[in-house]
Amino acid sequence: MRSIICELLNIKYPIVQGGMIWCSGWELAAAVSNAGGLGVIGSGSMYPDILRSEIQKCKAATDKPFAVNVPLLYPDLEAHIAIIIEEKVPIVITSAGNPATYTARFKEAGLTVIHVVANVKFAQKAESAGVDAIVAEGFEAGGHNGREETTTLCLIPLIKQHVQIPIIAAGGIGSGAAMAAVLCLGADGVQMGSRFAATHESSAHLNFKEEIVRAGDGETALTLKEITPVRLLKNAFYQQVQLAYENGADKNQLTALLGRGRAKKGMFEGDLIEGELEIGQVSAQINGIMRARDVVEETMAECLMVLQKTNRAYNFD
Amino acid sequence: MRSIICELLNIKYPIVQGGMIWCSGWELAAAVSNAGGLGVIGSGSMYPDILRSEIQKCKAATDKPFAVNVPLLYPDLEAHIAIIIEEKVPIVITSAGNPATYTARFKEAGLTVIHVVANVKFAQKAESAGVDAIVAEGFEAGGHNGREETTTLCLIPLIKQHVQIPIIAAGGIGSGAAMAAVLCLGADGVQMGSRFAATHESSAHLNFKEEIVRAGDGETALTLKEITPVRLLKNAFYQQVQLAYENGADKNQLTALLGRGRAKKGMFEGDLIEGELEIGQVSAQINGIMRARDVVEETMAECLMVLQKTNRAYNFD
Repeated sequence: MRSIICELLNIKYPIVQGGMIWCSGWELAAAVSNAGGLGVIGSGSMYPDILRSEIQKCKAATDKPFAVNVPLLYPDLEAHIAIIIEEKVPIVITSAGNPATYTARFKEAGLTVIHVVANVKFAQKAESAGVDAIVAEGFEAGGHNGREETTTLCLIPLIKQHVQIPIIAAGGIGSGAAMAAVLCLGADGVQMGSRFAATHESSAHLNFKEEIVRAGDGETALTLKEITPVRLLKNAFYQQVQLAYENGADKNQLTALLGRGRAKKGMFEGDLIEGELEIGQVSAQINGIMRARDVVEETMAECLMVLQKTNRAYNFD
Repeated sequence: MRSIICELLNIKYPIVQGGMIWCSGWELAAAVSNAGGLGVIGSGSMYPDILRSEIQKCKAATDKPFAVNVPLLYPDLEAHIAIIIEEKVPIVITSAGNPATYTARFKEAGLTVIHVVANVKFAQKAESAGVDAIVAEGFEAGGHNGREETTTLCLIPLIKQHVQIPIIAAGGIGSGAAMAAVLCLGADGVQMGSRFAATHESSAHLNFKEEIVRAGDGETALTLKEITPVRLLKNAFYQQVQLAYENGADKNQLTALLGRGRAKKGMFEGDLIEGELEIGQVSAQINGIMRARDVVEETMAECLMVLQKTNRAYNFD
């Protein structure tokens, strides 16, 4: 595996597990890292003491590199940053904020820094801020999402035209075939969220995992664009949001309807009616709950097979 | 080139030019067919006598197969169908309607029939109706678009799981790298619209072609979803639509604002202010007006090079 991402992150396969609220604690992160990918603890749903405990458990469960995902708009941000540095986490993936403010601080502490972007402008800002790589995430991704609505197929070549640092493609990748596709687009690796949300090691509620497996074509939507665009399953809560739109709800009314704790209620507590179920379009392709290690190995093997097969079909060497 | 699409359509390269209103007359179709792809006359903007004349000119300009695109909701549909059959057009690409109604009629007349879909349900309906292949078109595509908003990266593998007939991928494909990507996803060929809209042989107004070249990241949007979802450039007309939404416009008000002839005004007459400028997200990657033949050859060469290079980087055979 000659990917520049493997060298940068000191991992075997260029497969990063997306840091997801309520799904990616130490157990998933350690399983992915032990399988040769990069496991990521999603700190966005954790209080500082929980984050420290998750990092310590992850270190005990793997001797491989892992990362923590840090949304830069998180209220306890300073406490999180201090813990990540104190606990000597090797890699941080920042998102949802300005990389200029924190990249230098992480780099001084010796961390490798990756920043998540959804457009060319922020990719260039991240490169200027000195990050080591970017995750470029398309419209089809689950959870919070960019306002440009650029899809992964369009985003990767476009960003490739404008930045020099390595690119990890995210959004719509749930199979080795999709991994092969984005490598052809010029990505140096992939990030998969939804696929890992539905693994045994994911801390999501079993109800949510089973709902991901059940979901079919067209069953997610990007909504609540007035607050922060988020892709979720079209469950009963989503229908309430649609009804609010039809009744002309403004941003304040939508914020009140969303309330607090809906993502936890849906994804962690398994309330499929009232909860917010953040997941990507690729959920329609996920047909079973698997072990994280098997996801990594199956994805990698299928990717290599697809590249070989497609090249053989169209080239004659 | 061992693609099943090449065998089915009797063409050299599995590259289909999208049938686009106001952009794809006989000149573009003949140029693409002469270059080894499949040229397509877009009949959606033509009166019957114009369509007949365009078909006759195309036949005079190429001895290679070409197709006519027929939106099945077109008011002059019966006249169009009669002309296509009388003129012995070899291939028809139907869209925006029910393939069950017309496929048998075209097949009886000896035509090869391709139907455009944006979800699994219609792909299965098209297969049941007896079409020879489908075009599966993702959210990033220009012009009229599906309601599920499934992106090409997610749509192709999903449709591949559910139908047996050949799949031509569309939406977001403007380069050989993107072609390589969708072949890895399991597509048997590609359809490109935006890229051909910006060729010399396209019948679009030069103002529109130059605007496609100028457009950057995030400069298209899918809008007017209450009428028919359409992806267009965010020009002054689009801003009027946005303002109408902010003022709570209903479907009737939006239909009145759209009025008649806006696409012609923008795309054919070059009015970049008041016109409707239908184009895909991939416009952000289009950096020059080229000859159609060069687009076909460059795309094909880049596709083969990318498949070979990516396979070599990740496999060691």
